[in-house]
Amino acid sequence: MITPRDSIGQRSETVRRANLAAIATQLHLDGPLSRSELVARTGLTRSAIRGLIGEFVAAGLVNEERSDSLGAPGRPSPIVTPNGMSAVALGLEISVDSLAAGLIGFAGEVHAAVRVERPRGHLAATEIVADLVEVATPLLRRAEAGTLMGVGVAVVGIVRRPDGLVRLAPNLGWRDVPLGEMLAQALGIEVPIFVANDADLGVLAEHRRGTARGIEDAFYLAGEVGVGGGALVDGRPMHGAEGYAGEIGHLPVNPEGLDCACGSRGCWETEVGEHALLAAAGRPRDGGPEEVGRLLDAAAAGDPVALAAFQRVGAWLGVGIASIVNTFNPRLVILGGLFARIHPHVIGPITQRLAVRALAASRELVTIVPAALGADTTLLGAAELAFEPFLSDPAAWLAPRDGEVHLASA
Amino acid sequence: MITPRDSIGQRSETVRRANLAAIATQLHLDGPLSRSELVARTGLTRSAIRGLIGEFVAAGLVNEERSDSLGAPGRPSPIVTPNGMSAVALGLEISVDSLAAGLIGFAGEVHAAVRVERPRGHLAATEIVADLVEVATPLLRRAEAGTLMGVGVAVVGIVRRPDGLVRLAPNLGWRDVPLGEMLAQALGIEVPIFVANDADLGVLAEHRRGTARGIEDAFYLAGEVGVGGGALVDGRPMHGAEGYAGEIGHLPVNPEGLDCACGSRGCWETEVGEHALLAAAGRPRDGGPEEVGRLLDAAAAGDPVALAAFQRVGAWLGVGIASIVNTFNPRLVILGGLFARIHPHVIGPITQRLAVRALAASRELVTIVPAALGADTTLLGAAELAFEPFLSDPAAWLAPRDGEVHLASA
Repeated sequence: MITPRDSIGQRSETVRRANLAAIATQLHLDGPLSRSELVARTGLTRSAIRGLIGEFVAAGLVNEERSDSLGAPGRPSPIVTPNGMSAVALGLEISVDSLAAGLIGFAGEVHAAVRVERPRGHLAATEIVADLVEVATPLLRRAEAGTLMGVGVAVVGIVRRPDGLVRLAPNLGWRDVPLGEMLAQALGIEVPIFVANDADLGVLAEHRRGTARGIEDAFYLAGEVGVGGGALVDGRPMHGAEGYAGEIGHLPVNPEGLDCACGSRGCWETEVGEHALLAAAGRPRDGGPEEVGRLLDAAAAGDPVALAAFQRVGAWLGVGIASIVNTFNPRLVILGGLFARIHPHVIGPITQRLAVRALAASRELVTIVPAALGADTTLLGAAELAFEPFLSDPAAWLAPRDGEVHLASA
Repeated sequence: MITPRDSIGQRSETVRRANLAAIATQLHLDGPLSRSELVARTGLTRSAIRGLIGEFVAAGLVNEERSDSLGAPGRPSPIVTPNGMSAVALGLEISVDSLAAGLIGFAGEVHAAVRVERPRGHLAATEIVADLVEVATPLLRRAEAGTLMGVGVAVVGIVRRPDGLVRLAPNLGWRDVPLGEMLAQALGIEVPIFVANDADLGVLAEHRRGTARGIEDAFYLAGEVGVGGGALVDGRPMHGAEGYAGEIGHLPVNPEGLDCACGSRGCWETEVGEHALLAAAGRPRDGGPEEVGRLLDAAAAGDPVALAAFQRVGAWLGVGIASIVNTFNPRLVILGGLFARIHPHVIGPITQRLAVRALAASRELVTIVPAALGADTTLLGAAELAFEPFLSDPAAWLAPRDGEVHLASA
């Protein structure tokens, strides 16, 4: 599909940079790769690949080694291995129950990751930022000078992408918090900081390294107290006009339903969030993840009240997921957070509701799966976000060529 | 945002073709343009633009004329004008109440358009195809030999994009109709035929030539008997895995609601479609567009029953549009078809519901507008679809270069 944005002409330097980006991306997603594989994947000539790889080698970003071609005919193709410490990203996460930081290398290796629990409830942004910096600092010290590409931050709220302003985070009690700016100051580092909604980063991570690899259309459904969503549309994460897209928790499913934190009534998350699940089981609705754990144990032991609660929440989950299926025609709906934990108990009723509420054409194409990356899905997504500038234009991190202005600080 | 698909290396012939596509797209969307404007828009050099334009001139696709530069300093830049008869597309439309055909030229000029009413209700696909071919044939005769780029077909149903199979069109009584194949045979022409859902083409047309020009995130809401949707996400129409995306009519808004044609209950379209509107006004629910016209007249005359019906439908429209706003964070929600006609009467209650149900961050960014292209929106979208192969690779329609295999039949 042609868009005005595609209508940008290409000059030779643009082409070189695009080709470097193509190679960096392939190596980041699937490395190590042989030169021959890079030729096949990029469509570039052998000599072009050799020259471009040479630039990465000179910058220390990749190593090339002759492979032992056991049984393969002809000259073995050198293996190109990303140097995982040569380019790193810091991922940070602010969720309802925890703070986390991870130092992730080029090609996705997790060099270090830390998660600390935090008490639920409203806490001033300055305090959370201070706690987060404390978690992150030891990780940052492990990064060699000049190798940090950027910082990505996942937050359980609605985020204005261009400047990292958290417009609303009901579970933190935040409204219009300039999280990007605050972290830049508190961390005292000069690299770009990107802030995004947790579910949006969930779908990014699962697309890059999880269950949605190779899939172009998917929806990540993040459940905790609230419900968030992140869509992958035609291979690209959907942001909307300013980054607020995916707020699926407020589908108007029940005009007679409960009041919602958003000020409306009968929103989907009032029927399927953690509070709804625990209340349906007659347990304290503020019991948190530990109470959910006890409920899962009870269900595993055959407790009929627990099983009925999962049936009820599963049916409501199915109603909303049907709407997602009709709206997005995804190949995957990925259940994250709470919904990943309870997946085995709710997949039955979800499937039953889909049979009634989702259009057959789309229903036949979709599979409902738990997130593959587990508890660190959104943290990994945050790191992937931080790698964007490097992956989309690695030339800025390479040695300048004759007549080229070096853009290392771009 | 980097995706694996972007990771395709670029060779010089690829670059030439991409540059030709960039120029063709600019001219199609905004032509005529001066060479200087093309330089500015594409980022290509003057000499590159001159050479590439020369290829289009040689093929008769554009004309170049020296402009009279009134008052402009320096040598005037030649004006590049698309030749509207040199490349044409046939747009076809099958809607609930009419069949239509349009012959549209390069740069969007409507050379001819015909619309005929058709009786509502279920009709065999063979009959509709025969009627449509009768409408289209005189238009096709006006196209010069070799200038027809393709045929695009809008149909009020769920369409498998890759092969033009209509999976379901409740208002036509169709299920699994191979419309693309049938039209190819009946028209007896050798060009590609693309079939798509009407709302998906509505958003395409409004993006290219209507109210969403220059906007990257929009949602087109098509209302007649049923309700369909087409999303523009980050400048690209959203298709989903096989083309079924945008089926927003079945949002589960009311568990106590009416049975829906989809087999479920309380879907949004049971509260906002034409039947719901007429029923709310105590008028025959099958009265069709003429009865809607009488209802509009009554409302204009201050009839309280008519006004109350619009209030009711407007409020329910607002409930669903709030969900669209939360999910897509669009800058525009475009009301098409019935909803465009009733826009003045429903915009008030829609806005009231949005104030309650849509998240403020997204609500502040959105405007609700009627479709700008009027009754022919989807017909124009169908023609735009047919132009895709030409716009994405015009090289195939140009004279072959040394050593190049001509791909005119690609």
